Parts: sequence; C-alpha cells; structure tokens
Amino acid sequence: MVVNIKRMLNFKIEKELNNELGRAGVLTTPHGVIKTPAFVTVGTKATVKALTSEQVKDLGAQVVLANTYHLYLQPGDKLLKQAGGLHKFMNWNGPTMTDSGGFQVFSLGEAFGNSVTKISQQSKSLSTCLPVGKAPTTNDSVDNSGRLMEIDDEGVNFRSHIDGSQHRFTPEKSIEIQHNIGADIIFAFDECTSPQASYEYQKEAMERTHQWARRSLIHHNHLEAKLPSGKNRQVLFGIVQGGRFEDLRKESAKIISQMDFDGFGIGGSFKKEDMDTAVGWVNQILPKGKPRHLLGIGEPEDLFGGVQNGVDLFDCVAPTRMARNGTLYTVDGRININNAKFKNDFSPIDKTCQCYTCQNYSRAYLSHLFRAKEMLAGTLASTHNLYFITNLVERIRQSILDGNFLEFKKEFLKQYYKN
Amino acid sequence: MVVNIKRMLNFKIEKELNNELGRAGVLTTPHGVIKTPAFVTVGTKATVKALTSEQVKDLGAQVVLANTYHLYLQPGDKLLKQAGGLHKFMNWNGPTMTDSGGFQVFSLGEAFGNSVTKISQQSKSLSTCLPVGKAPTTNDSVDNSGRLMEIDDEGVNFRSHIDGSQHRFTPEKSIEIQHNIGADIIFAFDECTSPQASYEYQKEAMERTHQWARRSLIHHNHLEAKLPSGKNRQVLFGIVQGGRFEDLRKESAKIISQMDFDGFGIGGSFKKEDMDTAVGWVNQILPKGKPRHLLGIGEPEDLFGGVQNGVDLFDCVAPTRMARNGTLYTVDGRININNAKFKNDFSPIDKTCQCYTCQNYSRAYLSHLFRAKEMLAGTLASTHNLYFITNLVERIRQSILDGNFLEFKKEFLKQYYKN
Repeated sequence: MVVNIKRMLNFKIEKELNNELGRAGVLTTPHGVIKTPAFVTVGTKATVKALTSEQVKDLGAQVVLANTYHLYLQPGDKLLKQAGGLHKFMNWNGPTMTDSGGFQVFSLGEAFGNSVTKISQQSKSLSTCLPVGKAPTTNDSVDNSGRLMEIDDEGVNFRSHIDGSQHRFTPEKSIEIQHNIGADIIFAFDECTSPQASYEYQKEAMERTHQWARRSLIHHNHLEAKLPSGKNRQVLFGIVQGGRFEDLRKESAKIISQMDFDGFGIGGSFKKEDMDTAVGWVNQILPKGKPRHLLGIGEPEDLFGGVQNGVDLFDCVAPTRMARNGTLYTVDGRININNAKFKNDFSPIDKTCQCYTCQNYSRAYLSHLFRAKEMLAGTLASTHNLYFITNLVERIRQSILDGNFLEFKKEFLKQYYKN
Repeated sequence: MVVNIKRMLNFKIEKELNNELGRAGVLTTPHGVIKTPAFVTVGTKATVKALTSEQVKDLGAQVVLANTYHLYLQPGDKLLKQAGGLHKFMNWNGPTMTDSGGFQVFSLGEAFGNSVTKISQQSKSLSTCLPVGKAPTTNDSVDNSGRLMEIDDEGVNFRSHIDGSQHRFTPEKSIEIQHNIGADIIFAFDECTSPQASYEYQKEAMERTHQWARRSLIHHNHLEAKLPSGKNRQVLFGIVQGGRFEDLRKESAKIISQMDFDGFGIGGSFKKEDMDTAVGWVNQILPKGKPRHLLGIGEPEDLFGGVQNGVDLFDCVAPTRMARNGTLYTVDGRININNAKFKNDFSPIDKTCQCYTCQNYSRAYLSHLFRAKEMLAGTLASTHNLYFITNLVERIRQSILDGNFLEFKKEFLKQYYKN
C-alpha cells in the first residue's frame, strides 16, 4: 500500500552548537509551536497533577505528555474519543503527546506501589525503563508481585493495576488507542528492558522493538489514510532501544532511522555516567532534520548533557513527584521544605525565580502547608518545580541562540551542585 | 481606662427589604470592601483548601475567614505575626476574619476524625456548634474520645488534636492570638453548646459567653490602645448565643448589643425549621447599623432565610468539604459526580454557571479525576461550589437592590429543590 500522508509536523533548526550535536529549533504541530530544546510536562492521566491547565500554561509549559496505558484503563480511550480527544477533555489547547504504554506495561510488576521512578539510583545506572518479566534479570519482583505480564513476539498480556483485569497490547492496539486519544505526537510501541538485563536479552528485546516499530508505523499510516482529508493528523515517533551497549544502540538508531517516522524517542537504560555518550551514539546516526525525544529524563545535569548531545525534547515525572514530597529545586540545588529550618524562613523558595509560587509565597508558608497536609502544598510546589525545569530548558535554548551554551552549563551546574 | 479607638469598620446600608429585616450594604475594612449580603470563604489553616489565593479571588470571593484554634496550634500565631500577619502569610490582600476558636475548642471530642459538620442532620436540628463536654448532653462522645476538654468560668483547658499537648484558652488568650494573626475582623471568645443541651445548661453557657464577651472587648481595646496611631486596626464582633430558646436568644441579643462591638456573630444551635425565626428574634434586637454574621451556615435555603431575617455575612465549610467528596451544586439541586451516569456526560457541571470549571471542563472529566483520585478533582470541584454559593449570595444581594428578592427566592428554591 502506498501511503502519502501530508506531514503535520514541521521541524526547523535555528542554530547549532559548534562541534556538538546540540541545536535550537522550532517544532510546529497542529496545536501550536514547541520551541526546542523543550521540557515536556507530564500529564499522565490527562491532568498535570495538582494543576489546572491554565496554571500549566501560565508556568510556561509548551506541551503535555499523557499516558496511553493509564488512559486506556481509566477512563478508557473510547471515552476520550467521544469527548473530542485529549485536548478538549483536559482543556489543553497546546501541543500534546502520548507515549505508547510500553514502559508502563513492562513496569507493572515493580512500579506500582513502590514509587519506582524511571531513574534507577542503584549502581549509578540510569534507566528510562524497568525490569522485564521474562528477561534474565537480577530483579525478580515482577514474578513475585502476583501481577502477570507475559511477552511474546506479537505483543504483551498484562493485568490492570486497578482491578487485576486481563489485557493485551500489541503495536496495532497501542496505535489504535493513541489514535482514539488523539495527541499530536504519538509513539511506536516498544519493549522496555531492565538496566540489569544481559546483552543477549537486550538484543532480543531490541529486535522485537524494531519489528513492533514497523508494525506501529504501518498501522498508523493505515489509520491515517482512512481519515477524511483536512482532518488534523497525528505524527508518529519511533523509539530507539539497545540498553547500555554501544553496538546495539548504534544498530537500533540505524534501523529505526531508516523507517519513515516523523521523529524519534530514545528509550531504555543507560549507565548514568555514560548517558551523554550513549545519547551521542544514537543522535549521530538519527537524521538531523527530525526531532529527538529523550524519554523520562529531566534532572538538570542530564538536561545539559542531553541537549549537548542532540536531544530536542525531554519529559520526566520527577519535578511534580518530588514537589509533592516537598523536594524543591533552587539554583543552589534541591531543598527539602519539610526541614525544620524553613519553618520561619520568609524568603521565597528561590530568590531568582519568577514563578507564581516564588512571587507570592514564602518557604515558611509552604513549610506550613506541607506540615498541615494541605492540598495547596502540592499545587504551589509543583508550580515551582515545573517552572524551574521548564525555564531551565528555555534558558539552555537561549544560550544556544546566544552562543554561550558551554559557559551557561558550567556556571549553572557549578552553583547547582556546589553543596 | 477610657479607650478612644478610631473605628476601622464602616457599614453603610444601601437598601432594605419592605417589611423584612433584610438589607444590602457595603462594609469597608482596612483591606477593602465587602458588599453584603456576602458569603465568607473559609480558609481554616490560612489556605482555602485546594485553591491558590488567586483562584479564590478569581471565583469572586470577597473575604476569607481563618481559624484561631488551628492557626494557634499550627504554625502558631507568633509565626503569623512574624510573617507580617495573615494577609501576607497566605497572600490574600482582601478583607479577612478569624473566628475566636471557641467552636473548635468545644468540638474537639467529636469533630476530629468523624467529619462532623456544623449542621447536624439528625432530627432536623441545625447547629453551628457541637456538644460540650461538661454539658448535660445526650451525646457523650467527648468523654469517650480520650480528648479532654474542661471548662470553668475563666476559660477552657483542652488538648491539641495534633499531638495531644495541653492548652488553655481564655477570652484574653483568644484575643491575643487573633491580634497576632491580624485579621481585619475578629470574634469574641464564646462557649458553643450542643443542640441537645438542656435549657438550664444553655442559660449557664450563655451567661458565661456574655462574661467572656465583656472580657474579650476589654482586652481587645486594651491591646488596640497600645498600638501606634495610624496602624491598621482590627475590629471585634460579639457573639449572640442562647440555643433554640426564644427568651435566651432575645436576652443574649439584648446584652451583647449593649456592648461596644463593631458587629455581631450569631452562633450556637437552632432547630432547622425554626432557624429563620430564631435569627429574626436576634436581629430585631441587634442595632440595625452594625453588620451581622450567621456563623457556619451556608446552604441555599438557609442563605435566603438568613438574608430575609437580617443577616449580612455567612460562612460555611460545606461548599469545599462537599466538593472534595464530589457533591456539586447545580441550579437543579446537588449532584454526586461519582454517579456512573456522569462518566460520559460532556456537559458542564451546571450549564448556567460562569465559573472557571464550568467554562472549561465537563462532568465526564471531573468524574474521571474523582475516580482516578487526582488532586485536580478537589481544585475544580471547590472552585465550582465556592463560585456557586458566592454568586448565589451576590444574586440575592442584587435582588434586594432590584426590589425582587421574594420572587428570586421563590424561583430559585423551587428549581433547586424540585427533585
């Protein structure tokens, strides 16, 4: 079948770093423009936790990423379609994305109830994904959890974390769900592996991911071709895997970049100290003219490293998750607002910050809200942390345009990590 | 001691109902104007639950009432003084009030952990207060709770609901705390009685309340006189008690109105069907030129009845508390958004409502947020319920000005209670 889809995504590179992969660009979607590099705000269940869509917009967020797995289970992708799609349902008129659900399906056994993040703190390994049930992994929590997840070459069977009901995702199913949800940018269905997985398993999973990428693309084009002309079109990003192995990463980048995707996600696991290098391997191979999204990464040092190595988009739940626990970003590093010393500290969270929270409330007030377990604590803390990270990526972008990226990186990280 | 305090409160009556006690007025405080009748938004712990102060302002709230008991225990009234007062601490630049803490001190045994509201649903009795430990009451939960509360003619000993620590409130202590908190309008310390309390106990408690009112007023004037001239002054409201007994209510209104308060609170317990009458008894006696606040009442029918019988101000936690449970006001009565029929209802909560929530989100979206236990559920629901009640009182005010109060009352209540 010959498919001739009018591309709804336009990516223009405005400026590149000298002798580096990094660049500043503008990505145009049917729902507006994303100036890259950009931090993508996570709105897992069609809500950025604790914030109205107006507050999300006001803090400077350009784009929201919702979750295919979660929305499929609750309230159901068909309901989102009936509602007129994700934008209308959640009252977010800007660009949107959905991930493919792969990460959540594969992390069911370990992630739920254990507040596991995408970044593994053990042995300095950094992973965008979590252990695979069938994989020869050192972590067998999936098997012990009582939540079944079975993978075969066609797809994955899994149980709902909400009610234990049985479900099956295939690449085709993931794409169908994402079409029902209706985000501007969607992702191919991939297999997420553990940082502890062996070379052999990483290779097997990667090859399956490539097959699933092809199937995702075919099914996406098939569904797009059936739409009436003129209707807003969604675009599909393929995902590069390959774990922490150079040859696998390069092979994956090469194979995925040969497929007709509109952009790329970089998923899977890295060693923290090697992440920049590994991202560089991939981005040297991916076509320069298409956007690249580093999945699930968002700490300041990783943002600088990612941008320097050619990443255009980042998403991470850390800013909002940490905020709800009282961990707040400042230019001098993170603080925990629950610390007794902040009880009568009437200065803002960060004196240099222009967010709504820092302009109007003190550390003492936030300290009070957290101690009193008031809901506003989560709202004000999330507003600050999201603004901080969103604004940091904006400033990184500006430093590329101004030609002083390396100076800004050095200066920021020196202050941020000085303690 | 002769005290000559420049009054910081100005109350101007704009229009009165024909042959009724009701009126529309304008109350001027050091932090701005309150158009009365007005609904006072409750911000117990220096936060209107789930909302930023900007959201509170945007929904049309004119004035916020914080809680003396709660703020005394957490974060402490001295910290609020250090912060520059309640307005600055919580970033609310409009008028503020604090209650005296009496209600909370007397309700400790029953209120905490049992989600008891100020309105008793049993036997159609309506109470702004809860059972008194020492009172001859049919409800002995205070004694069984393990939380001690001992009353004597000088004051009350009680334990913190947070850590069990021992505290004592006297009228002087309550006024001192309220001066530290720094709200524009503060209340005399009173004893709250149970709707089940006997005539004899109601009389005894009322007489103690009158003594405490005198002491509150003396101590307030004493503290005010010590302030440098030109400093924003707080004003003190006395509280009328007397339970559900006509002679006691009238006696209390007479005695309290003879004291030099700037306005009056009407507290204590009523039978629901007699509330309007009882409020009328009181307001026929209270001086016409000073504002009257019916404490802890806020259901639509009670608002109309209260206004008709001369009430200028209302406060109630019900709109936000119900909101957090998914109970939402509409012109056709309350709905519970958790009901399955709202899952795919893409209309707003109330088609006639102009609030942020109704202008931007559907019942289906709120249903999803409540089922997914998302924090935004509480924010959007509270925004709607507070707007609904605030706006209703605004419309009642307008109907007085327009001379069609009784028609509006009839029409609104007919539709609201039709189901």
